Amino acid sequence: MTLSSPAIQGELAHTVGELAERFAATAVERDAVGGTPKAERDLLRESGLLALSIPREFGGLGATWTEILDSVRSFARVDSAIAHVYGFQHLLLATLRLFGRPAQWQPLFERTARENWFWGNALNPLDPRASAEDQGEYWRFNGSKRFCSGSVDAEMLVVSGRQGEHGKLLIAAIPSQREGVRIGDDWDAIGQRQSDSGTVTFDNVRVEWSELLLDPGPLSTPYASLRPLLAQLIFVQIFLGIAEGAFDEARELTLTETRPWFRSGAARAAEDPHVIARYGELWLGLESVRALAARATQRFDEAWFVGDALDERKRGEVALAIAAAKVAATRVGLDVCTGIFDVAGARATRGALRLDRYWRNLRTQTLHDPVDYKVQELGAWALHRSAPEPSFYS
Amino acid sequence: MTLSSPAIQGELAHTVGELAERFAATAVERDAVGGTPKAERDLLRESGLLALSIPREFGGLGATWTEILDSVRSFARVDSAIAHVYGFQHLLLATLRLFGRPAQWQPLFERTARENWFWGNALNPLDPRASAEDQGEYWRFNGSKRFCSGSVDAEMLVVSGRQGEHGKLLIAAIPSQREGVRIGDDWDAIGQRQSDSGTVTFDNVRVEWSELLLDPGPLSTPYASLRPLLAQLIFVQIFLGIAEGAFDEARELTLTETRPWFRSGAARAAEDPHVIARYGELWLGLESVRALAARATQRFDEAWFVGDALDERKRGEVALAIAAAKVAATRVGLDVCTGIFDVAGARATRGALRLDRYWRNLRTQTLHDPVDYKVQELGAWALHRSAPEPSFYS
Amino acid sequence: MTLSSPAIQGELAHTVGELAERFAATAVERDAVGGTPKAERDLLRESGLLALSIPREFGGLGATWTEILDSVRSFARVDSAIAHVYGFQHLLLATLRLFGRPAQWQPLFERTARENWFWGNALNPLDPRASAEDQGEYWRFNGSKRFCSGSVDAEMLVVSGRQGEHGKLLIAAIPSQREGVRIGDDWDAIGQRQSDSGTVTFDNVRVEWSELLLDPGPLSTPYASLRPLLAQLIFVQIFLGIAEGAFDEARELTLTETRPWFRSGAARAAEDPHVIARYGELWLGLESVRALAARATQRFDEAWFVGDALDERKRGEVALAIAAAKVAATRVGLDVCTGIFDVAGARATRGALRLDRYWRNLRTQTLHDPVDYKVQELGAWALHRSAPEPSFYS
Amino acid sequence: MTLSSPAIQGELAHTVGELAERFAATAVERDAVGGTPKAERDLLRESGLLALSIPREFGGLGATWTEILDSVRSFARVDSAIAHVYGFQHLLLATLRLFGRPAQWQPLFERTARENWFWGNALNPLDPRASAEDQGEYWRFNGSKRFCSGSVDAEMLVVSGRQGEHGKLLIAAIPSQREGVRIGDDWDAIGQRQSDSGTVTFDNVRVEWSELLLDPGPLSTPYASLRPLLAQLIFVQIFLGIAEGAFDEARELTLTETRPWFRSGAARAAEDPHVIARYGELWLGLESVRALAARATQRFDEAWFVGDALDERKRGEVALAIAAAKVAATRVGLDVCTGIFDVAGARATRGALRLDRYWRNLRTQTLHDPVDYKVQELGAWALHRSAPEPSFYS
Repeated sequence: MTLSSPAIQGELAHTVGELAERFAATAVERDAVGGTPKAERDLLRESGLLALSIPREFGGLGATWTEILDSVRSFARVDSAIAHVYGFQHLLLATLRLFGRPAQWQPLFERTARENWFWGNALNPLDPRASAEDQGEYWRFNGSKRFCSGSVDAEMLVVSGRQGEHGKLLIAAIPSQREGVRIGDDWDAIGQRQSDSGTVTFDNVRVEWSELLLDPGPLSTPYASLRPLLAQLIFVQIFLGIAEGAFDEARELTLTETRPWFRSGAARAAEDPHVIARYGELWLGLESVRALAARATQRFDEAWFVGDALDERKRGEVALAIAAAKVAATRVGLDVCTGIFDVAGARATRGALRLDRYWRNLRTQTLHDPVDYKVQELGAWALHRSAPEPSFYS
Repeated sequence: MTLSSPAIQGELAHTVGELAERFAATAVERDAVGGTPKAERDLLRESGLLALSIPREFGGLGATWTEILDSVRSFARVDSAIAHVYGFQHLLLATLRLFGRPAQWQPLFERTARENWFWGNALNPLDPRASAEDQGEYWRFNGSKRFCSGSVDAEMLVVSGRQGEHGKLLIAAIPSQREGVRIGDDWDAIGQRQSDSGTVTFDNVRVEWSELLLDPGPLSTPYASLRPLLAQLIFVQIFLGIAEGAFDEARELTLTETRPWFRSGAARAAEDPHVIARYGELWLGLESVRALAARATQRFDEAWFVGDALDERKRGEVALAIAAAKVAATRVGLDVCTGIFDVAGARATRGALRLDRYWRNLRTQTLHDPVDYKVQELGAWALHRSAPEPSFYS
Repeated sequence: MTLSSPAIQGELAHTVGELAERFAATAVERDAVGGTPKAERDLLRESGLLALSIPREFGGLGATWTEILDSVRSFARVDSAIAHVYGFQHLLLATLRLFGRPAQWQPLFERTARENWFWGNALNPLDPRASAEDQGEYWRFNGSKRFCSGSVDAEMLVVSGRQGEHGKLLIAAIPSQREGVRIGDDWDAIGQRQSDSGTVTFDNVRVEWSELLLDPGPLSTPYASLRPLLAQLIFVQIFLGIAEGAFDEARELTLTETRPWFRSGAARAAEDPHVIARYGELWLGLESVRALAARATQRFDEAWFVGDALDERKRGEVALAIAAAKVAATRVGLDVCTGIFDVAGARATRGALRLDRYWRNLRTQTLHDPVDYKVQELGAWALHRSAPEPSFYS
Repeated sequence: MTLSSPAIQGELAHTVGELAERFAATAVERDAVGGTPKAERDLLRESGLLALSIPREFGGLGATWTEILDSVRSFARVDSAIAHVYGFQHLLLATLRLFGRPAQWQPLFERTARENWFWGNALNPLDPRASAEDQGEYWRFNGSKRFCSGSVDAEMLVVSGRQGEHGKLLIAAIPSQREGVRIGDDWDAIGQRQSDSGTVTFDNVRVEWSELLLDPGPLSTPYASLRPLLAQLIFVQIFLGIAEGAFDEARELTLTETRPWFRSGAARAAEDPHVIARYGELWLGLESVRALAARATQRFDEAWFVGDALDERKRGEVALAIAAAKVAATRVGLDVCTGIFDVAGARATRGALRLDRYWRNLRTQTLHDPVDYKVQELGAWALHRSAPEPSFYS
């Protein structure tokens, strides 16, 4: 429905489209019940899309990030919780690639592609409660992590723990079945209700040296530091997808059932100039985000292609492009998800539609990290030409 | 918690405060289940507040509108669905007063005060499906009305029906137990979930001539035309109350549990200048609405006091003051209900808090009539000095 | 033209109205030439309004601040440079009253009323270049002060100098003819062009002990600390006046000469719903500021009336009310001064109208102190209930 | 200074850069005096840039529209009046190309390139005062046109007149020296002061049949209808250039002279987080417009390349992309031109800088056609997928 130059085409577009349609059919009821979207996750497994970002030589589909992120956004239009765990699947694979040695990520890529593994996130660098202790031959992880999206029903996890209170953050890739790992189904939020973003607990979990991503390790080089940028870019595309989904559903309502206001003189709500003006504003907002997101995604793809040779300056420019898109997507998205009701009318608040889920999903997801600090990053660049210092959020 | 010159004082403030506290204690769980807040309605009955707007000579408390609306807003801070039906109780009593003869409203006021009657609204002038047929000695109502707030568990109803397809709107006050009246419990919306705003159906309902409010009748004089302005003013106070309630709850969270952002350098979130700036913006918005709402309420009280002698010009000025407050309350309120999450942080999205209910309630209630047409009214006044033509929405 | 409850009435309103009309007649050409509005200053002298804030017992008109500020705003609608120096006349008189002993301010009030003295401002506490040296019997001022509004053609000056680099700020009231005082005519800004806000230089200026305002001295008590609040409140009223003046002139143009857009289908621009919507928005903004400004002014008047017994809490509430009005007036005002062109049309840019002067005047005046820090004050209050610490800007 | 992928490179960039520097050196004083920038126009003539859009085969530089518009924007950063007449030079050449026969535009292109002709605009389709009368062998033009940018000092004019009151608009290309043509130097506006947008009067001007652009004629095909889109796109780039110029100058001031606010605790204004936040907002706005403008320009270039085969759908998509960019550029631009003062500080209002010229120029230029109707176009597309009907403004 939404006009945008399709980044994905052919068979891939077909697969994504078909899946999106199936997700859409049950999204409303699944938003109501919450929990793990097991059937939908299995559809993703069967589709092969979990290997979309894996190079062909390792059995994957070898898509560009532009294509991958387009599929994330397509899912976000109809079910942003699934889009989140699906997007993070590819973020976690990229994490292996960027933080680990080829000898680590290559076999993991192969098995992921072959066995359609789902990866879950138990890495949350801001939750200080998980520790990693050097046991000589191996490491021991204890404690817990909050906000572990996609951890339930995942075959593999990317986990982290701190070595001492203010020590180094150690990141490892381990099977979710590893002894001592407990994956909570305690996620119950106002939005992103099927993103399984609950708590993962480590009780004397043994982690091998070979599972630790130490070389080059997190945020160690400009190239390795693309990881947080990819996370941010996935958010941009999810935010935009949510807003586009909200827009599309509202448009359908305005065209088919919204009543004209008695003072408007219009035969249909869709002919009221005030309604048209509101659609103009919604559209303008979406177009701005689309243009910024497309540019940011293209720059990310270019930087990814550069690989290890990526320098700080180029990495900084990608960071800035993504930051701008993120702030715009956050603001425009929230405005759109609130504003759709003004054009869909009072009856669009009926419970059966659950039209509030767009706002709830976006509001939940946009709290990942504060937009004010992205604005500071933009300002520091605009004024001082200093690029954001790489962190797990910049 | 909220700073505002208290319009209500002494015993009344005490009663309202105590009730509000009780409503607050269960508001979250009642938002989840929906349905009729029977216990809370009975508390309102017992409190005597259902007769707050009834003059003392008829057994009521004889409060000013400033006082009445302050109680509406107090309830809206903690439970806007109750605030709605409670506010409409007084709107419906005012409807009797403004559209009917003393011989009609005086005994109804007395019985309402004596028996703590709750009034429900089945008047919706935009729903064309209810008809009124002249049977000579009496009238027959058939059809149905949507959005009948507070109709369930009401002793009395204000109903309406059209005489012919484009005919006059006839308004009557009848007991809810009248044969042929069916009050639906079909209200299930994303917000205002316990406002019982479902469908009322009339199946050959007999309405006596003496129950029809024909003298002076609806919108017949500037004074009678205060009725829609009171409805709009109740909305203003509910919108503001919701925003204030949201603000208060967010503030509590920021002060007690929100974590400072790792880049802020602040020991507590409440010391982060960006968080403080956001509170400044929220506060400024609320203060603007408070100032506009106070002014509009004062003007309404003055106009009410004038009574039948009220002229069009004065009525127009009241209408404009209320329209300005309504637009501001709508916009500021939605911004506040979205913005509280930015200052309360990611964990404020946890399901147990249901902090999204403020946005859901306000978003639902603000769709009563389109804000764009209020802006047109303000513009016509600003440019042409022409006051809004009285209607059920102006 | 502008609807607002007139705070000033009768003879005073007549005097102010007549003067405003005369100022309006030449405002455009005086904006072009800049310099000192000598004729207009003399009209103010003759009118008696320079003594408006002086109590009747000292020969003045004994007006309330509500009345005084209403006259400031009336002038600001047509000539905000004059409104500035006129408003500061009363600020400087209040400075004597709040910082000095009765034996100081009483005779100065009397002479000001009797001789129609104009007071100029050479107090700028942020300009560190003026020093005050204790010479035993007297003090010696050297150095200079920037932004000395109303200093040219003033009989008296309020001056300041620092005792040592980080020392105490000493404030004194001296005749402008005092030896060593040089008043620059170097003010040439994009706006407020006739406010004579240039440089005053002190070359070994002798200041007597009796001219120093030491008891109670600046910002020494909550009551004395009303001085910066009055300055801020004068700005609020000037900002609002400028916006109202811009609105009035644009409205006149829309009604009389603006052409309808060819796609509008309207016979007159004033009937285009988009034009009406814009007027609605402009009006809503102005109404919000009017409501906030009225409330702030009333609170200031109440606090002033309390006198020396004023406590910190009450002073804080006045400060907050003024801060809210100031932020709103700044933002709304700039929006209005830009937005008037959209409703007045392309031909309203013709040079003869100098319609840009509203924006230039407001933009210049709103840079007195940064609005971001006012938002911080509002936020600190909203979140922590801590009132702004008194300073020359809070 | 401004980060953007340079569309123009090499020698062309060098030429444009050098000219821009020369224009910048005198822009402030030329804004003060107004009138015709004769010396600068001659520099443009000498530079060869007046033939930038003329294909190489006709002696021009054969640049793409992306390159041409980049040069327009480069000039707009330092002198938007010159950018206007320079941009319109290429619009008028495109007008010949799109509305006329090869036998008409080819020789005109050749002579323009060879003799460095400047073209002026006397086409204003909304000014009804000029008539065209069929005299059999030739036509006679009488009456006048307002807003004829670049007409003074132009060798050639594109003129228009109506055949009868509501008749067809006839457009012709004639020498400015033609008998009966009087080019007024009556342009005196608050902004774009050296754009010579005054009145052109026709007194029995003889226009040959061969000078009329009748085949295919104005707006006759989707391809011919690119003309108004090019006009709109030139505005987009000028608006953006003005905003970028304002930003650059403010940034320089903040970095070199703006004083930190005494409450900020910062040693330099550029380290105040509130100042940085404001730069972040300004930057975000500019980036959004840059992204939208780049996309619109690219689509325009693609459509131009299609030529006569261009269909309505594709033309509509270009129109929408330009409309979105135009609305965003208008709003962001005005915000930037006002907001730069908040970060540059009070002293940036000093007359010598004339920093208000950015706002004055943009405010004047953005009134060309109302932004509200562009929003309607966006809304009609968003809701109904109906593209704007071609007109001289869509």
